[in-house]
Amino acid sequence: MSSTEDFDYPEIIVQYSNGFLISKVMFTACELGVFDLLLESGKPLSSDAIAAHLGASTMGVERLLDACAGLKLLAVEMTQEGALYRNTEISNIYLTKSSPKSQYHIMMYYSNTVYLCWQYLADSVREGRNQYGRAFGISSKDPFGAMYRSDEEMLKFMAGQNSVWSICGRDVLAAFDLSPFTQIYDLGGGGGALARECVSLYPNSTVTIYDLPKVVQVAKEQFVSPEERQIAFHEGDFFIDSIPEAELYILSKILHDWDDDKCKQLLAKVYKACKPGGGVLLVESLLNEDKSGPVETQLYSMNMLVQTEGKERTAAEYSKLLEAAGFGVIQAKRTGKLYDAVLGRK
Amino acid sequence: MSSTEDFDYPEIIVQYSNGFLISKVMFTACELGVFDLLLESGKPLSSDAIAAHLGASTMGVERLLDACAGLKLLAVEMTQEGALYRNTEISNIYLTKSSPKSQYHIMMYYSNTVYLCWQYLADSVREGRNQYGRAFGISSKDPFGAMYRSDEEMLKFMAGQNSVWSICGRDVLAAFDLSPFTQIYDLGGGGGALARECVSLYPNSTVTIYDLPKVVQVAKEQFVSPEERQIAFHEGDFFIDSIPEAELYILSKILHDWDDDKCKQLLAKVYKACKPGGGVLLVESLLNEDKSGPVETQLYSMNMLVQTEGKERTAAEYSKLLEAAGFGVIQAKRTGKLYDAVLGRK
Repeated sequence: MSSTEDFDYPEIIVQYSNGFLISKVMFTACELGVFDLLLESGKPLSSDAIAAHLGASTMGVERLLDACAGLKLLAVEMTQEGALYRNTEISNIYLTKSSPKSQYHIMMYYSNTVYLCWQYLADSVREGRNQYGRAFGISSKDPFGAMYRSDEEMLKFMAGQNSVWSICGRDVLAAFDLSPFTQIYDLGGGGGALARECVSLYPNSTVTIYDLPKVVQVAKEQFVSPEERQIAFHEGDFFIDSIPEAELYILSKILHDWDDDKCKQLLAKVYKACKPGGGVLLVESLLNEDKSGPVETQLYSMNMLVQTEGKERTAAEYSKLLEAAGFGVIQAKRTGKLYDAVLGRK
Repeated sequence: MSSTEDFDYPEIIVQYSNGFLISKVMFTACELGVFDLLLESGKPLSSDAIAAHLGASTMGVERLLDACAGLKLLAVEMTQEGALYRNTEISNIYLTKSSPKSQYHIMMYYSNTVYLCWQYLADSVREGRNQYGRAFGISSKDPFGAMYRSDEEMLKFMAGQNSVWSICGRDVLAAFDLSPFTQIYDLGGGGGALARECVSLYPNSTVTIYDLPKVVQVAKEQFVSPEERQIAFHEGDFFIDSIPEAELYILSKILHDWDDDKCKQLLAKVYKACKPGGGVLLVESLLNEDKSGPVETQLYSMNMLVQTEGKERTAAEYSKLLEAAGFGVIQAKRTGKLYDAVLGRK
């Protein structure tokens, strides 16, 4: 085999190899509070000043700041007093803890949980199952038992999911006109960020978050205020306990956690509970039918292997699951962002 | 703070977050032998066939193949018998074990050593030191003691470095006309791939690889054949033992492992040993003087924090170190690839 002129230097291979370095630089700058400090300070700071504020080594902080500058997450200006750093606009909006669109919590979940599980990707592919055993020494038989292995882990996961809906929630809820449905259940609605987007977009709706008792308790304590009167709660395990009657059920990032049998089981229960004329909204990242991508969704499907019992699916696969449960008039809409929407009617 | 139209969706943040997923998909496909199998088979294969050959789960392998297809590391064709996968040209050249330009070994080093160290990037920035302690439970005081903690680890590191020189070696050696120098020492020359490029590019030269006794032993056994008569060996620790006289000393990726004091100490010894009219060639990845990049080098400088006592430097910083040791007529040349060259003369 001989290389050709075009392939003399494998830019793409180098770029892919460096992917984890890039992720970790961004995650670590978030974790150490670099972006928060620069937002609060209101003026550019030197690496010495930043290191002193963060209680971290100057040597380490300077390199972290320089790498962030290379990634356009910070801007750097060379002055007579040395280099001064400030946030770029994208960092102010997405990487500071206090921003309404903050992705801080999902980054921490990625950095401290997902990154560790992915150390065992080869084992996961060999065995065809999740890696909680190797990564955390806990049984992998019950993925949510593993994911919610401590209150702290559960809280991190809930906060992380809320970050996602702060940037993707509105689009998935606006993909279809849901205004005919006023009585909505968000099954596995967790920290409530999607429910909040829903009542904001559809002011006549009420959304009941149906989730495990311990999740509901934390959602009430930490994420949803009693003033938010259009949001209610229902404690239960939707695989075991009954599902109350409603006009619309939202299953956002639920089916991707489970194999086809479990999905069918759950959708059959939802169909039975659903009012005639009602529907179910699946919020998922949709794979193309011809395996051509989107690459993000293909990567997330690998993550489902590493962390759950499920996978990402195509619109046709979701349609089939919905039809098997009795739903009809199925429509899928892509949003152009990470998550898409599939609506089925009873 | 309000988001603007331009920043409604943080593509770059999503891309950076997914970086480690991309790295691990590529590393894992290499590790499991996907590209080797598809090269050997000489025809496209189904995921079932690939899983059976690799002794891995069909579920896991299919998703891995699809993610590789999304990353253009594989091509997929939908046929009547289902999806069939084959290597892309770049994978044949760089990701198969048997290719002369194979990056397999550096990928394995990244995936199984560097990835683990980087789990502790935040600690590394806080403390300003390498993370062998946390990552592998071994002392971080002697980085090469840690890196060469077993023969297996040393072999992986040497093979990994050889991969790098198979794609970057020729350019760094061609950056300057080295033909006037026939008697060359490659200090810390490890597995010998750079020495091999050197004698190929400069047929009148002989290159002596100066490295630790155990490194030299493995280089002789595994990497350099006795037929390669222009390559010789010298066992020693260049910080402790004497350095023989020669016309040119190559220090490739050596200074970036050490702090300024150690660099000065080493360069002073090299200057003393060097024949008048001779020189020293530093092969390193050069940072821009204004902190504007290259981002790869900024990331590698973070890796030096996580794994060594050193850092990446600018051309001006290397010039200063060379001048302090007595070298003059210093020239730096960028290659446009990962590693650049700086030449100093005695």
